Amino acid sequence: MISDPFDSGPTGAFKTLCRTYPDDTVFKGSDGFRSLWGPIFYRGRANGTARLLVVGQDPAQTEAVTRRILSGQAGRRVQGFVEKLGYTKRYLMINAFLYGISNQSQALPHLHDPEIEAYRNQWFEAAFAPGRIEAVVTFGTPAFDAWTAFTATPAGQAVLPTITFHKALHPTADKPGGPISRKDLLDNWNIALQSLHAGIQDPDVATPLVPYGADFTPDELPEIPSRDLPFGIPAWMRSTDFWATMAATPGNQRANVTIEVP
Amino acid sequence: MISDPFDSGPTGAFKTLCRTYPDDTVFKGSDGFRSLWGPIFYRGRANGTARLLVVGQDPAQTEAVTRRILSGQAGRRVQGFVEKLGYTKRYLMINAFLYGISNQSQALPHLHDPEIEAYRNQWFEAAFAPGRIEAVVTFGTPAFDAWTAFTATPAGQAVLPTITFHKALHPTADKPGGPISRKDLLDNWNIALQSLHAGIQDPDVATPLVPYGADFTPDELPEIPSRDLPFGIPAWMRSTDFWATMAATPGNQRANVTIEVP
Repeated sequence: MISDPFDSGPTGAFKTLCRTYPDDTVFKGSDGFRSLWGPIFYRGRANGTARLLVVGQDPAQTEAVTRRILSGQAGRRVQGFVEKLGYTKRYLMINAFLYGISNQSQALPHLHDPEIEAYRNQWFEAAFAPGRIEAVVTFGTPAFDAWTAFTATPAGQAVLPTITFHKALHPTADKPGGPISRKDLLDNWNIALQSLHAGIQDPDVATPLVPYGADFTPDELPEIPSRDLPFGIPAWMRSTDFWATMAATPGNQRANVTIEVP
Repeated sequence: MISDPFDSGPTGAFKTLCRTYPDDTVFKGSDGFRSLWGPIFYRGRANGTARLLVVGQDPAQTEAVTRRILSGQAGRRVQGFVEKLGYTKRYLMINAFLYGISNQSQALPHLHDPEIEAYRNQWFEAAFAPGRIEAVVTFGTPAFDAWTAFTATPAGQAVLPTITFHKALHPTADKPGGPISRKDLLDNWNIALQSLHAGIQDPDVATPLVPYGADFTPDELPEIPSRDLPFGIPAWMRSTDFWATMAATPGNQRANVTIEVP
């Protein structure tokens, strides 16, 4: 028998936001969005119990199948990060963009489009409304810019004095041959961890901070908890990084997805 | 903006059954089950409000993505059937088998394996526990045999006098060149409809029975209601029959899935 907790789904204002959301006239294919895969809203506790708010960028092909953000390679890296802070359950992850991006240079300039920003700010407001969030971390520049835009609103201004915040590099900012090495990424994350850890009062598990070394260890890439995913999602989808691939056509927002069972 | 109702998920006993279920030591790959895609539990109201119980056979590749049963071609045919009975919402669909089948001749003999039958009967018991089911329809022989096995139990014996029942052919029993034509299938379904319609007291929409003709009309193949699927599932997944294909290798329970956005 398998006995796995699963995500019972959003409640209250979060549920409303998963029911009514901008369509592909806002997240246009011609603007570099992969809107045909549908919106992917969150991962974690969309029920008012979250203490940590994580902001990412946009969902990829893995997330189009699990229907939760940050559940592929970037997701497992972020999962290790939040667990280092002692959060094993009471976190909420949302993205700067509700739909996947097929062309970054086309899509990123739309971060502050009024309808995109207004909808995203409703997620921020829903996250803070219960008054429980004590820490916020953004991963990557669009996530940071989304957070910054929220903190310029009255609701954002009100929460700023109540939380610990730090910005971190995108979870897959390190690319082979790119300007940011694995070590650079983890050095950046260590600084974020130290800053956030000091400000956290009520983690799920009080734990001394163990920084990253030069590379991720296996323990630092935990599986995505079953309680973050819909019921019945097989275990290999939670413990493997690359089981869904996009069609090769670059910039094709209708890109297809192939799921390869490992 | 999109404003779609979605399935808020199972409650009570149904939720327990979606959390604790037999694994691939029961639904073995070597017995012809495609257990690596994970279990697919139900479609419709797993919350005690269902008035009609539909029993199908096993989930296919489309359902492995939507994570709800009867959501591809067979599902749209069944949807038309239940809507002809006046049920637009208060139905529950379950399958004889929790996991997909890759090899029917290997898998079907396991219909009455003790652990498979015991788990399935828990779904029947959960469906009837609220006392609201007034009609039951089975599609295909394994579904009928599953129902028959349940009605041999004390819980099944107790509900038999309280419901209208009819068996129908599998929704895709008609195959090109096969022994059952489209007309044969629909004649069979018309008999089932007449029988069930006469016994139904409380449909969602009281509606005169309109039988099928020689083929499905477009109206008789409605889209899968968004309220039966998880939040964020794009509309084309509900209104198209064949957007997911299996790898060609017959009998390969590790068969992969390709999603082609129409």
